[in-house]
Amino acid sequence: MSEPIVAPPVAIVMGSQSDWPTMQRAAEMLDKLSVAYDARIVSAHRTPDRLVSFAKGAADEGFKVIIAGAGGAAHLPGMVASMTHLPVLGVPVQSKALSGQDSLLSIVQMPAGIPVGTLAIGEAGAANAGLMAAAILAISDAGLADRLKALRAEQTAAVAERPA
Amino acid sequence: MSEPIVAPPVAIVMGSQSDWPTMQRAAEMLDKLSVAYDARIVSAHRTPDRLVSFAKGAADEGFKVIIAGAGGAAHLPGMVASMTHLPVLGVPVQSKALSGQDSLLSIVQMPAGIPVGTLAIGEAGAANAGLMAAAILAISDAGLADRLKALRAEQTAAVAERPA
Amino acid sequence: MSEPIVAPPVAIVMGSQSDWPTMQRAAEMLDKLSVAYDARIVSAHRTPDRLVSFAKGAADEGFKVIIAGAGGAAHLPGMVASMTHLPVLGVPVQSKALSGQDSLLSIVQMPAGIPVGTLAIGEAGAANAGLMAAAILAISDAGLADRLKALRAEQTAAVAERPA
Amino acid sequence: MSEPIVAPPVAIVMGSQSDWPTMQRAAEMLDKLSVAYDARIVSAHRTPDRLVSFAKGAADEGFKVIIAGAGGAAHLPGMVASMTHLPVLGVPVQSKALSGQDSLLSIVQMPAGIPVGTLAIGEAGAANAGLMAAAILAISDAGLADRLKALRAEQTAAVAERPA
Amino acid sequence: MSEPIVAPPVAIVMGSQSDWPTMQRAAEMLDKLSVAYDARIVSAHRTPDRLVSFAKGAADEGFKVIIAGAGGAAHLPGMVASMTHLPVLGVPVQSKALSGQDSLLSIVQMPAGIPVGTLAIGEAGAANAGLMAAAILAISDAGLADRLKALRAEQTAAVAERPA
Amino acid sequence: MSEPIVAPPVAIVMGSQSDWPTMQRAAEMLDKLSVAYDARIVSAHRTPDRLVSFAKGAADEGFKVIIAGAGGAAHLPGMVASMTHLPVLGVPVQSKALSGQDSLLSIVQMPAGIPVGTLAIGEAGAANAGLMAAAILAISDAGLADRLKALRAEQTAAVAERPA
Amino acid sequence: MSEPIVAPPVAIVMGSQSDWPTMQRAAEMLDKLSVAYDARIVSAHRTPDRLVSFAKGAADEGFKVIIAGAGGAAHLPGMVASMTHLPVLGVPVQSKALSGQDSLLSIVQMPAGIPVGTLAIGEAGAANAGLMAAAILAISDAGLADRLKALRAEQTAAVAERPA
Amino acid sequence: MSEPIVAPPVAIVMGSQSDWPTMQRAAEMLDKLSVAYDARIVSAHRTPDRLVSFAKGAADEGFKVIIAGAGGAAHLPGMVASMTHLPVLGVPVQSKALSGQDSLLSIVQMPAGIPVGTLAIGEAGAANAGLMAAAILAISDAGLADRLKALRAEQTAAVAERPA
Repeated sequence: MSEPIVAPPVAIVMGSQSDWPTMQRAAEMLDKLSVAYDARIVSAHRTPDRLVSFAKGAADEGFKVIIAGAGGAAHLPGMVASMTHLPVLGVPVQSKALSGQDSLLSIVQMPAGIPVGTLAIGEAGAANAGLMAAAILAISDAGLADRLKALRAEQTAAVAERPA
Repeated sequence: MSEPIVAPPVAIVMGSQSDWPTMQRAAEMLDKLSVAYDARIVSAHRTPDRLVSFAKGAADEGFKVIIAGAGGAAHLPGMVASMTHLPVLGVPVQSKALSGQDSLLSIVQMPAGIPVGTLAIGEAGAANAGLMAAAILAISDAGLADRLKALRAEQTAAVAERPA
Repeated sequence: MSEPIVAPPVAIVMGSQSDWPTMQRAAEMLDKLSVAYDARIVSAHRTPDRLVSFAKGAADEGFKVIIAGAGGAAHLPGMVASMTHLPVLGVPVQSKALSGQDSLLSIVQMPAGIPVGTLAIGEAGAANAGLMAAAILAISDAGLADRLKALRAEQTAAVAERPA
Repeated sequence: MSEPIVAPPVAIVMGSQSDWPTMQRAAEMLDKLSVAYDARIVSAHRTPDRLVSFAKGAADEGFKVIIAGAGGAAHLPGMVASMTHLPVLGVPVQSKALSGQDSLLSIVQMPAGIPVGTLAIGEAGAANAGLMAAAILAISDAGLADRLKALRAEQTAAVAERPA
Repeated sequence: MSEPIVAPPVAIVMGSQSDWPTMQRAAEMLDKLSVAYDARIVSAHRTPDRLVSFAKGAADEGFKVIIAGAGGAAHLPGMVASMTHLPVLGVPVQSKALSGQDSLLSIVQMPAGIPVGTLAIGEAGAANAGLMAAAILAISDAGLADRLKALRAEQTAAVAERPA
Repeated sequence: MSEPIVAPPVAIVMGSQSDWPTMQRAAEMLDKLSVAYDARIVSAHRTPDRLVSFAKGAADEGFKVIIAGAGGAAHLPGMVASMTHLPVLGVPVQSKALSGQDSLLSIVQMPAGIPVGTLAIGEAGAANAGLMAAAILAISDAGLADRLKALRAEQTAAVAERPA
Repeated sequence: MSEPIVAPPVAIVMGSQSDWPTMQRAAEMLDKLSVAYDARIVSAHRTPDRLVSFAKGAADEGFKVIIAGAGGAAHLPGMVASMTHLPVLGVPVQSKALSGQDSLLSIVQMPAGIPVGTLAIGEAGAANAGLMAAAILAISDAGLADRLKALRAEQTAAVAERPA
Repeated sequence: MSEPIVAPPVAIVMGSQSDWPTMQRAAEMLDKLSVAYDARIVSAHRTPDRLVSFAKGAADEGFKVIIAGAGGAAHLPGMVASMTHLPVLGVPVQSKALSGQDSLLSIVQMPAGIPVGTLAIGEAGAANAGLMAAAILAISDAGLADRLKALRAEQTAAVAERPA
């Protein structure tokens, strides 16, 4: 493989600073699984050049999976997907008026040819984007697969028998 | 009008060939008003380079107003708007599963900073995009303003008094 | 600018005093771009005469573009559009029970023949109505076009590289 | 004012010829109850002057109740209501893309001060608008009240005991 | 007016005590117009016998118009309408999880044969139910018609020219 | 009342003849499980007296479970439930304009105190109402429990391994 | 019957500890009716083995009716139903972004063959699940039927005549 | 591991035979990219044992990515995800009454801890699930990455310049 040893395999991009409280959950999940990532703000609408250079260069930068979160008319995940062959995971950030229904439909309803693997609206979706990125990388990383299984087991063990 | 004689003032772009039956209504309206236009397919997802070069070059090509139609996760209007300061009108094409609700939200719910003037879902919206482009151009084109008023008057006259 | 010195080119109308906190965002955007405007309350339902006289007289008053905001069964933008050939931009104000979904559909789903260029629900939509009005006026106002491009560049520059 | 003896008490207005197949159900119901009506096309958007003169003159023409049907961004019922103190009944005509959800919200979500009594989407709603107009007139017309009760009784009798 | 002096012409019924803060708006509107009313709790689900005796006896009690408000699976307005030929106005009370969307559909989507004139979700709808009841009674009460017109004129006069 | 020994344990009621093609699926399922039933048309809106006498008498007639199907503003299941302590299962019949979304919300969103166990919209829901009625009766009918388990096993066995 | 005398007839299962404030309403209702129950956390997603062993063993444990509550992509009720022939009641817990619309559809829209009797979103639904479980058990428990009727009568008596 | 060397890396599972016309699009896409797959029917509701054995055994069978499609209360993707650490892609099959809105929410709104990467409703989503599975596998398969890039290039080249 050609990327430098230190290159993090996961890029977390988001449409604006205000998406970070949501997207941070993806970062925390990757931290827990010892998967390196790089978090950046890439606004499809306000920084289209940055979008193009990020998306076109992502594979060459050494990224393996991209997590993209945005809200409202959420074009970032789909537009990144249009310019890379890397797998793109989309996180619909909860929007003010429509609670993320607009974000969800803008991200998930991609036409045939350009997929975005979409997670749930909001923080649960962001955490799961981290987990899914790890699951994807774990296909060829047995150590990560083990950490992932351990996390899942821990998660199972944490469920109490009875409500209190 | 100040633009070169050959440059049409309106660009009609659409995400795919299948959007043409809808978007043709915009073209017909412009024809009726003797406003020249250029209709092109620009897929935000399948031809992102064409999107960038179209949107960035639109003002220099002499376009004054851009009509963009797309369906589903409809990113074309908003992405064009992100790369030009020209006014962009969006037409939500009626989608199969969600009847254009996804198209509408993907187009209209743009964040502050990048506007898309959105019309109704489907053919009515496309016709109105043509009309609105004309109304915009008519601000500085008295002849077009007259043709527009005539069309509106004709439209009014065509409404029968009683149902039959 | 070519219109008479005293006539502002943009009218901002809204259905009620309670829409002003939203519509003020349009005014602020126009202020930022040094575009003059006149803000008025015109209730389609409570002041229908004012609606008629405003809409019919808008072109003669010297307005070039009309921004109309309303919530719920939001009839103001469409009714203004029915009585003027000027371009009308609609802002769906966020409503209490339905979060602006009623406002959005009432404004955007206009029949063929009478367009309203609709922006997003709430404050982002109002700000964008201001921007779009400016973009429309900038077609024949090179100075405004420059101010608009500068604002867009500023907006781009304000996006941080990394979330914090 | 003393209206002419022959003046029909109910006006049925609709936004376009294409609403007639729906609104005809209101007319049929009134026919069944021997309530006279006048059916007209009044487009809020294409014939705003007709709207104003109809709505403002409705009481003087001798109408007692107004039934107004429209689809999509359905402004007719609410705008008629804004210009008359007569009771206005609204019928949301089933629209193409959104099946009348837009029509319903545009009609029913009126602000405090201007009521529209809204019936169901489509033909059932139109039939019920006819029935409700009759119920309103029956308050001061004992003969009509009897015919209405007879119709209701007939309706009850027509329900079979068992499905077949 | 022909009804006995003591019988109030309007009944306001609601599904539960918790609907009163909403339905009170109907009462206030009727107070403003000097229309007498009787407000009662009639739960379609918890007091079905009361529902039957109220609805069947309403005409004989001297009521002319019934206003019925309920939330969620809001069956009260339609069930009252099924047992009286008096005009019934329905008010969808804003519900907790679905913000009154369930209330609205449960009230407005009545089958052909049994109409409910439905107003907006929540307090605006309740106020308008009061207004509409008055408009219905005003058909045969010139004094009330005058008070209604005065209220509407006052309402119009109260709209400021400019936002502040 | 002393019901005949052979009294069927399940009542299937529906709002109109037009609901039968849907509700027949409940009957077929009960037939398959050899559970007797009685199918009747009981319109909450057109036959409210029949509703009251059916619902109040259902337990005395010997019914153990009631299946009620209706569409649109579907009040039948909830109103039956309000007048019996027997378990009531509700089937939202697919409506024309809103595809059963109105039926579903009108049936499922019952207030605390009066439950309706709601099944899926349309034929699947009707079939499942039959199954669930059987499951309820099977609690104290071991033979039926065995037939139910056999049906479930058959159902499992009928699923092919691979699509074809 | 073969289950031990002390076995509670109702199981209340929920997807997570956070569902308890909602599901507790089911428990309270059963307490009021002196119906024993066992409340457990069974996460379809985090504890699938517990799900399988619970659902498959429920009948043998002596449960007669199962109440299952979950939110979001709420798979618990349907998955329990897939592995038992006991009647399963589903409670859609109100979710953060979509207010329980996702929970409701995930629970109620089961395919033909595997029914879940679904109650309202949130606490009202949970209380009603308790009531419905009791109604089901009351079919073969006359004492419980009496307690249920008493509760219903009490509920009726608690409705005030007039709002205050 | 015990699987044969030729074990296909992708499993396509679906809830019923009727999902195949949709899911076949995933298969076709994988065929085009020369990625082997195994297509099976695994009904979460009718064959829960098959679900458990498939999901728990998927990694050992040698699958690397799982594509799961289902409609309505679509539990298959989420339940598979709950029992494997492999990446799971979900395809919401278009349902009859609700056009796949139920399928979409049932699949995408997974809680934190168990991700499903969800694609668009219907055939476009199925095709994209195939593409995304390939993109995931291409991370460690340079040949596949090249085929994927070629397909994307072909796709771009197939977009005509102008509508016809």
